[in-house]
Order: sequence, then C-alpha cells, then structure tokens
Amino acid sequence: MILPTFNDIKEAHERIQPYIHRTPVLTSESVNRLLGAELFFKCENFQKVGAFKFRGACNAVFSLTEEEAAKGVGTHSSGNHAAAVALASRLRGIKARIVMPVTAPDIKKKAVAGYGAEITYCAPTLEARETTLQQLIDKHGITEIHPYNNFRVISGQGTAAKELIEETGNLDIIMTPVGGGGLLSGTALSAKALLPNCRVIAAEPAGADDAYRSFNAGRIIPSTQPNTIADGLLTSLGEMNFAVIQQSVDDIVTVSEEAIVEAMRMIWERMKIIIEPSSAVPVAALLEKKIQPEGQKIGIILSGGNVDLGKLPF
Amino acid sequence: MILPTFNDIKEAHERIQPYIHRTPVLTSESVNRLLGAELFFKCENFQKVGAFKFRGACNAVFSLTEEEAAKGVGTHSSGNHAAAVALASRLRGIKARIVMPVTAPDIKKKAVAGYGAEITYCAPTLEARETTLQQLIDKHGITEIHPYNNFRVISGQGTAAKELIEETGNLDIIMTPVGGGGLLSGTALSAKALLPNCRVIAAEPAGADDAYRSFNAGRIIPSTQPNTIADGLLTSLGEMNFAVIQQSVDDIVTVSEEAIVEAMRMIWERMKIIIEPSSAVPVAALLEKKIQPEGQKIGIILSGGNVDLGKLPF
Repeated sequence: MILPTFNDIKEAHERIQPYIHRTPVLTSESVNRLLGAELFFKCENFQKVGAFKFRGACNAVFSLTEEEAAKGVGTHSSGNHAAAVALASRLRGIKARIVMPVTAPDIKKKAVAGYGAEITYCAPTLEARETTLQQLIDKHGITEIHPYNNFRVISGQGTAAKELIEETGNLDIIMTPVGGGGLLSGTALSAKALLPNCRVIAAEPAGADDAYRSFNAGRIIPSTQPNTIADGLLTSLGEMNFAVIQQSVDDIVTVSEEAIVEAMRMIWERMKIIIEPSSAVPVAALLEKKIQPEGQKIGIILSGGNVDLGKLPF
Repeated sequence: MILPTFNDIKEAHERIQPYIHRTPVLTSESVNRLLGAELFFKCENFQKVGAFKFRGACNAVFSLTEEEAAKGVGTHSSGNHAAAVALASRLRGIKARIVMPVTAPDIKKKAVAGYGAEITYCAPTLEARETTLQQLIDKHGITEIHPYNNFRVISGQGTAAKELIEETGNLDIIMTPVGGGGLLSGTALSAKALLPNCRVIAAEPAGADDAYRSFNAGRIIPSTQPNTIADGLLTSLGEMNFAVIQQSVDDIVTVSEEAIVEAMRMIWERMKIIIEPSSAVPVAALLEKKIQPEGQKIGIILSGGNVDLGKLPF
C-alpha cells in the first residue's frame, strides 16, 4: 500500500485552491480562559458544503484524467461526502452518481440533487450501498471516490492543517475528531512535515471508540453498534488511514456524550459560530482534561457545521 | 445640539482600536444567489460582548478625563449595552454602576457582574430605571453613558461601517437595523463621508416601527407597546440619532416577524454563524423585496449574536 506524503498534500493544495474557501482561523479569549490554553480554530464549518469533506472530494475529482472524467464518478454516502462529490463534479463539469440510503435526511438528498448529481436509492445497509455502487461501476465505468480510504481524499483533507499551520506558525498540539480517519491522517501528514515536534492527538466519542481501540491494539477493530450524537464519526477506520495514523499520530482519547454537547454549546455561545457535534469532540477532550492543555498552543480543526436546527441537543 | 462628524468617528477608531476586535467581513455565494445581490456581512456578532455596542461604550469610557474617570460611569440597560459599559470600564480600570431591572435575564446579570460592574436593581419600568440612575449620578458624580443618544457612543458605533467600507471599497447600499438609532446614525456618518453615492437604508420590525414613522413624519414619534422578536430594537429613537438620520439616511423600511425568523435561519444555515434576531432584520428586508437588491453591492452590519439557545424560534 502506497501512502500519501506531504508532497501529495502540497500538490493537492495547488490543484484545489481555485475551488475551496481558505477558511479563517478564529481565536476566543473567553474560550482560552475557560480551557486554560491558547487555541486556534480552523473553521472548516465555513468550507463549501459546510465541511472539510469538500477538500478531499475536490482533489479526487480534479485528479482524474480526461478519460476517467468523461465516465464520471460515484460514491455511497448519506452525508457531507455525498454533497462534496456532487459539488466538485459540477465544478469540473462531469457526471456524479451518488448511492444514498432511502432513509437519508431529505435535506441531504435535496443538497445532492441541487448540485446536479444523479441519486440512486438503496436499502439502508452497508451491503446494499456497496452492491448498488458496484453495479454502477460495472455498468458505467465510473471512478469510485471513497469518503476516506482513498489516497487523493487523504491528500485533500491534509490541506486544512497545512493552511492552519501556515497561519499560526508553531503549535504544541494539533487536534481533530476521528471517524473513518480521512481528516486525521491528512492532518498528521501535514503536521509532522511542517512541525516535527507538534503532537497530533485525535478525539473520539466513547460510544464509537473503534479508532481508540484500534490504535492501542495495533490492528483495525471495526465499530460494532456505534452510538453517539457525533453522527459524522460513526464509521470505522480505513486501512490506508490506519497505516498513516500508526506512523504519525501521537494519541487518541475518548470523550463522553455530555462533554460533546457542553463543548458544542460553549463554542456556539462564546464564538457565535455553528459547529456540528463531531466538531465539538476535540473541544470536549479539553473540557474533560483528557489532555493537559495548560500553557499549550493548540490548533483544532472544526470539521463541519451541518446541523438540523430543528433537532438541537439544547 | 452639536452632532458628531466623520472626524469624530476617525478619532474614536484610533482611541478604541487597541480594545475592540476588527471583526471579519464575510460573504456567502449561496446567500447571494438566494437574495440576488452581492452581500458583504460585517460580523459584529463576533465583537467583544457579542455586539457592536462595545464600540460605542468603549469610545465613551476612554474619552473621559482622568477626573471624570476617577468618579466612574453609569447607565441603565438590561442588555448588551450594560455588558459593553462594564467591560470597557474594566479595561480602563474604573468603576461602572449599572442599573438593571430585576426582570433582566440571569445570563445578562451574570455577564455584567462577571466584568466587575456594580449592579443596582430596580423595578422594570423606564421611570424606575431613570430615577435610580439619577440617584447614583447625584450621589457619586458618575458620568452617564446613554446607550445611543450620546455623541461618543454614536462616534464609536460608526467605526463598524468605517472598517466595512475600508475592506469592501465601493458599495451601492449599506444597511443596518434601527432601534434607538445609535448604530444607524454612526453608520450613516461613515457611509456618506467615505462613499457619497452609497444609499443608507435601515430596516425595522413592523411591530416596532417608530423610526419608520418618525422618519416619514419628520419628528420623533415614540414607540407605544412595541412587539417583536428582535429584542434589541424595542427602544425609541434618540434626539441626536434622529437629527443625524434626517440628514444622512435615505430610507427606512419595515419587515414582518416571519421574515425576521426566516432570515435568521437562512444566515445560521448557510453561513454557519449565530446572529440574534435584530441582526436578521436587514436580511429580512431583502427577503421581502422591500428594496430591489438585483445587481447591487450591499454591505450589511450584523449587529450582534447574543441569543438564548434554549429559546430559539425554530
């Protein structure tokens, strides 16, 4: 298995720069005071489609040869990755076929259709999703863009940490949430290349702690019945992601559901920005003192801002 | 009555620059598409204390002579102005006495006390507030900082539009909400000085339309039983504010409660930032086509972001 390097992230950055937002890095004196550290928040909640996912999808779509592009791309996803692939494809002017479970939220279906992608509905199981996508691949010769276990996707996600570090300079710690590991692996590659002494620490809900267990066991242990409000973190680690994580991540910590909601509310109230529960997971780790923040300069990637305002946890 | 000029706003800006946030100007392609204009949002929801009010309070507090400062300042307010005066006073190291109605939300009382101000509670009527404040003035010789009908406060509020225009360059229209008129009068002074052809348009809830009626009648007509979700806009125009508005504001339009909630939700969902209902009022005017936005470059000052997350209108 060939893993991406920081060089691939630099190439990805040049490739996607015309299409992505260079999102701001925000700070908050009151949050710093409450958590006892100097925090720098990379606001991927302001990224196109409302999540960092657009970076990886964009890099994958714009890396295709003309021949591949002509056949189109496909993926299965009920969430942000589907919208990201759909928008990136529209920007390149190619066809995107998205497999979505019939149970996906209407707002997500609408977003994907609104970007001009073709949706194929399937039963809400991983097997049905994979089978349906395989049929589309066999029939149309489309290129699959996996949401995280993909060289180009990891390279694209790594551009968020690259931008963050370009803006902040030295950091003692850089933190992300971890689900499939796309953001974490890309972040670790950028961090270790640009700041060799910076520690890379991921945070994960205790109710979906497959990355924590895999990291400590030294082999991938898939999720069984994950349960957390952080709905972006339900997936299990990908192989390519895990290989990078083993090489370059310093620690993975877990947090409670209560701390996730408290951290989310703190960021909304103090910083006046909307983040989704998954984004609050690293902040929750600081709240619960899972790492010692005192006097540290810590960069946190806020992964996304897509929440259903009708179903808030407070 | 001597009115402030743009020169006073420039002086205010130099005075308060070390203390305020230079808030970002955000744009959103999807909001532009929905409203049919090119919009530039000046994010005073990210200002200290969560509202533009800090600019005016800061200018008033730091304009005091040493002798005045030694005696302290005072105001009556149940909202953002109270917190703004309290924080500005703490930064200058002087005493602030705030008269608050006993009915003020706990969170506001805590914020003011947290900044080290001394709170005097009174009955929840304008008369009780004014009498109580006058007693403090008589007893302690404090300087009153009125929330909007005040030369230094207007000059401070005008710095938000100055920063906005410095960043955007030419604008066809600049919009603010209007309550007492502090933000609107300061904005109009900056806009007309920097962009003589820019139209200044205020938006006001139809349920609290004293500024609209006063503007059209040519004399101040105070609010009677104002009723709107935009709780920052319940007050009636101040005299100094009205004088500036008559000279420099091009139009005032009114909007429905439904449009305010819809506009607020649109900004939350599309821009991932938290704005309070008052901030959504100019956006509501575009939604309701109270002005023709097509092809215009429009600057909008988002006045604040203090909302009770437990009592959202959606």
